[in-house]
Amino acid sequence: MLYIALLHYPVYNKDGKVVTTSIANMDIHDIARVAKTYSASGFYIVNPIEEQRNLAQEIINHWHNGYGADYNEFRKNAFELINVKAELKEVIDDVKEQTGFKPKTVVTGANFSGEILKFSELKKILQSSNMPYLLIFGTGSGLTDELIKKSDLKLESISSHSGYNHLAVRSAVAIIMDKIMGI
Amino acid sequence: MLYIALLHYPVYNKDGKVVTTSIANMDIHDIARVAKTYSASGFYIVNPIEEQRNLAQEIINHWHNGYGADYNEFRKNAFELINVKAELKEVIDDVKEQTGFKPKTVVTGANFSGEILKFSELKKILQSSNMPYLLIFGTGSGLTDELIKKSDLKLESISSHSGYNHLAVRSAVAIIMDKIMGI
Repeated sequence: MLYIALLHYPVYNKDGKVVTTSIANMDIHDIARVAKTYSASGFYIVNPIEEQRNLAQEIINHWHNGYGADYNEFRKNAFELINVKAELKEVIDDVKEQTGFKPKTVVTGANFSGEILKFSELKKILQSSNMPYLLIFGTGSGLTDELIKKSDLKLESISSHSGYNHLAVRSAVAIIMDKIMGI
Repeated sequence: MLYIALLHYPVYNKDGKVVTTSIANMDIHDIARVAKTYSASGFYIVNPIEEQRNLAQEIINHWHNGYGADYNEFRKNAFELINVKAELKEVIDDVKEQTGFKPKTVVTGANFSGEILKFSELKKILQSSNMPYLLIFGTGSGLTDELIKKSDLKLESISSHSGYNHLAVRSAVAIIMDKIMGI
């Protein structure tokens, strides 16, 4: 069982005021559809700012229950997978409540050191195990060092011949989900 | 050599007026970065409506030459790959002018009949040949039957265990580019 979490971090200005931590509308749409395509068990949007969570929930409600649900049933089905949470701990608790097991956390990103889990290894694990795994993506400048250190597993990064490594998080989620959950 | 073309079709209302054929800002951003990551030789945005082409060009100029270019060099590099054209014929002519050869056209989508080119086959071709190939994606409801019929090759479609097949075109481009141009 695979769950996806998309983490948004607040960015502060020098006065300690939050500058941005916006949830991109397209992240919600694209990743929900990828999650549905590749049979993810859930897609968590994690944002510490309440207003941002409310905005995300409004978009979700529109497509899940409101006008958008009648307008586009395919999108409704994808939006059923989404949950909005304030922090990662709540996600882990939620998965545990749903499955009975604390999920193994798998961080994504570039330049990990230490032991790296290959895409093919994670694919095999997910095919042969019924335990929950939580695949964690960060927006903006990626995941914090602290979170990476605390995670159970570090996933191989997307590599290309060009050395250019600046994909949108939406693109990264699509590529990785195909690699680990594709046929 | 691989080129990407993203086709926008006009949608007409019953009076024959164009309703929409909008170029999504995120399509430009995400696909340009995917194209750069996977060493595509060019990314063509094709739209028959002049105003839409002008809008796309404005966005590109912003990131390529304007404020955005100083602000984000990574994005500038990706935006260098973009060209805006009115129709597919112009794209084919442009590739021919650049490379000396008319590109083989490869259409993408679901439910093709007849001979299908596997991702792995196209990957091998691109590794062993210097001839240009043009990978064609459609927005909205996909490519027209006429275009599919006229194309040189029909690419395998993205498949998943869920049977749910409603990815954003941005996601489809990312997944396919990784399959045919990834390491």
